[in-house]
Amino acid sequence: MLGNYLDEVRKKAPLIHNITNYVTINDVANMVLACGASPIMSDEPTDIEEITSICQGLNINMGMLNPRKIESMQKAGKKSNELHHKVLLDPVGAGSSSFRTEAALNLIRDIQFDVIRGNISEIKTLAAGHGTTSGVDADEADTLTEQNLEKMIPFIKDFSRRTGSVIAVTGGIDLVSDAKRCFVIRNGRPEMGRITGTGCQLSGMMTAFLAANPENNLEAAAAAVCAMGLAGETGWKYMQPGDGNATYRNRIIDAIYNMEGKELEEGAKYEIR
Amino acid sequence: MLGNYLDEVRKKAPLIHNITNYVTINDVANMVLACGASPIMSDEPTDIEEITSICQGLNINMGMLNPRKIESMQKAGKKSNELHHKVLLDPVGAGSSSFRTEAALNLIRDIQFDVIRGNISEIKTLAAGHGTTSGVDADEADTLTEQNLEKMIPFIKDFSRRTGSVIAVTGGIDLVSDAKRCFVIRNGRPEMGRITGTGCQLSGMMTAFLAANPENNLEAAAAAVCAMGLAGETGWKYMQPGDGNATYRNRIIDAIYNMEGKELEEGAKYEIR
Amino acid sequence: MLGNYLDEVRKKAPLIHNITNYVTINDVANMVLACGASPIMSDEPTDIEEITSICQGLNINMGMLNPRKIESMQKAGKKSNELHHKVLLDPVGAGSSSFRTEAALNLIRDIQFDVIRGNISEIKTLAAGHGTTSGVDADEADTLTEQNLEKMIPFIKDFSRRTGSVIAVTGGIDLVSDAKRCFVIRNGRPEMGRITGTGCQLSGMMTAFLAANPENNLEAAAAAVCAMGLAGETGWKYMQPGDGNATYRNRIIDAIYNMEGKELEEGAKYEIR
Repeated sequence: MLGNYLDEVRKKAPLIHNITNYVTINDVANMVLACGASPIMSDEPTDIEEITSICQGLNINMGMLNPRKIESMQKAGKKSNELHHKVLLDPVGAGSSSFRTEAALNLIRDIQFDVIRGNISEIKTLAAGHGTTSGVDADEADTLTEQNLEKMIPFIKDFSRRTGSVIAVTGGIDLVSDAKRCFVIRNGRPEMGRITGTGCQLSGMMTAFLAANPENNLEAAAAAVCAMGLAGETGWKYMQPGDGNATYRNRIIDAIYNMEGKELEEGAKYEIR
Repeated sequence: MLGNYLDEVRKKAPLIHNITNYVTINDVANMVLACGASPIMSDEPTDIEEITSICQGLNINMGMLNPRKIESMQKAGKKSNELHHKVLLDPVGAGSSSFRTEAALNLIRDIQFDVIRGNISEIKTLAAGHGTTSGVDADEADTLTEQNLEKMIPFIKDFSRRTGSVIAVTGGIDLVSDAKRCFVIRNGRPEMGRITGTGCQLSGMMTAFLAANPENNLEAAAAAVCAMGLAGETGWKYMQPGDGNATYRNRIIDAIYNMEGKELEEGAKYEIR
Repeated sequence: MLGNYLDEVRKKAPLIHNITNYVTINDVANMVLACGASPIMSDEPTDIEEITSICQGLNINMGMLNPRKIESMQKAGKKSNELHHKVLLDPVGAGSSSFRTEAALNLIRDIQFDVIRGNISEIKTLAAGHGTTSGVDADEADTLTEQNLEKMIPFIKDFSRRTGSVIAVTGGIDLVSDAKRCFVIRNGRPEMGRITGTGCQLSGMMTAFLAANPENNLEAAAAAVCAMGLAGETGWKYMQPGDGNATYRNRIIDAIYNMEGKELEEGAKYEIR
């Protein structure tokens, strides 16, 4: 079933508008291309509504946030809601400063997101309405493990119920949940955490999955998470002696480029809770 | 003949000023280095004239446009005209918003460009003085094919006549034309379209070719287009199982790094019409 | 001895705040991760003090400078001084415009840097209090060679004495010096100069070395320089036919990712003068 969601991206080749950070912007664009969609990167308030109008999905990534980008995010998000485009929020760094936390909370209040995708520290910050994390990576105490899974699932379902958004929490284990059903996903490799921007790339690709599969946000988001994790596994198989995180970064994008729906179907490791 | 143009870049190692987008800025810098020139990336109005003055060529790329960058482009372009430096315009996204279209038209009005290089949608927008495209990739209806070639050549020659600029239209087939002669170039591979920024990289490299070969804009621009396409062919030969668009991106830059004038001479596939 | 400095980075995994340019920002983040630290990239004045407060080191890189970033650099640098965090200055392009030179001189006046790391043109500009260079690469007349080494060492020691900062000058031969002792380092390969951002990457990694080894700035900075040069040597060994500067860039980051303290210990080539 999940394999079809990738096939649809290839078939429809949606145009995805990304308001994203400059650290990983190139990788996000190449990842969106790798999965079969087309990226447009623009964060200028002057024409942001016009740009988002010609796209089919909007990916709002809060990395390297500044007031000019917040204005763009607000405008583009509202316009996308008006046009019933898919909109995703990646609240990078929510909790690491009050400026970022407040901006994320405002976005969630003003825009109806189809998916909110972050690490566990960021999602906890948003659910609490305040919070502090240590930078842009999840706090170690906040890593999702088999141990705290039982507590996290109802927590995420509740946050989904309150926001009306699918919530995707990625880390060691990944959770993708609406108010009723939670995909518990066990694809991926720990070495993916030593590459900058695998989360940003996933958000870009996930927006393409949402835009190409408009009937089912939950499955589309889960399919994207499985695809990313599976690409981490496939990419790792091609690693040679001497390869490290820079090459692994390329191998993961390459693996998405070469991934077929059938491969995703067979390689996705998940249960529904 | 075209091979000499690459040899001249290696010999003179011109310093190329790039006002470019943040999506592909790193790849542009590495591509400029690969072909034997040196890049400087700066888009700050405060010292843009001073920066461009120490360079030998200016590459203006309109991706991720904003008002601050337009000010820099205007200042740097005029200063470069004053100093008789080579200036290239890459009108990324012209036609995708009225803000971008208007900015491009203003640049063409205010600055004398040696070359304008874009995809067919962008060039049509500029030639018409208005227009709409779907994002930053060429519209499908606008792809250059053997079928519409006959109509495009006089169209591009006319636009070159009106602007006094060499016009380079890149896509499936590439055209590089002044008012009289049009290079029809058939190097390259379709997979290059699945990498973000091959056009931006070409613009950076082409500016280096122009700066190192000041006597002949048309041949210098055509040589750069052939070199890029040939690098796409050479890079593809090195692709291994599991490789995709991220690795292909590196292989193309690598191919330019290793390309010799003789190889370009022999591999360039073009006719003059 | 120097190998331990890398081991400490892996052990302590410091969070490094980078205010850096958008050309090489992705490579800097991946290099900081490769050496075992965590990067956070932020240049927004609004929350820059809050962000730098949760980090253990600050890397200020002046590439693509603008007034907004200068404000951020000033605020973050002063806050880091207050908190006794390690602070490094990479004065990219000092000397290439009066705006950049003045900004660098102001930073040195207002902030106590643990290390200033640049190419020889940039360091000479700062030591003279004015100057002109040709772009962001060192002037050829300014390349450090066996011939001018004798004159450079006392010059750098003097500049270190006046600033109270360790001075790291990187180029063909690298010098890392305080007022008394100068490491003369002969690791690395000339091909590293054909990659954009190896200097930026070194600055990010060096800040991690400083933060993880707070007792000894001189040795920590020298260890980072040796590690970078050694990675250039190791990465080169893995180069295959057809590989060029784009692949070499990845191989260097990969080499740091795989480098062990023992390997650095044995591969570091230096003398103390």
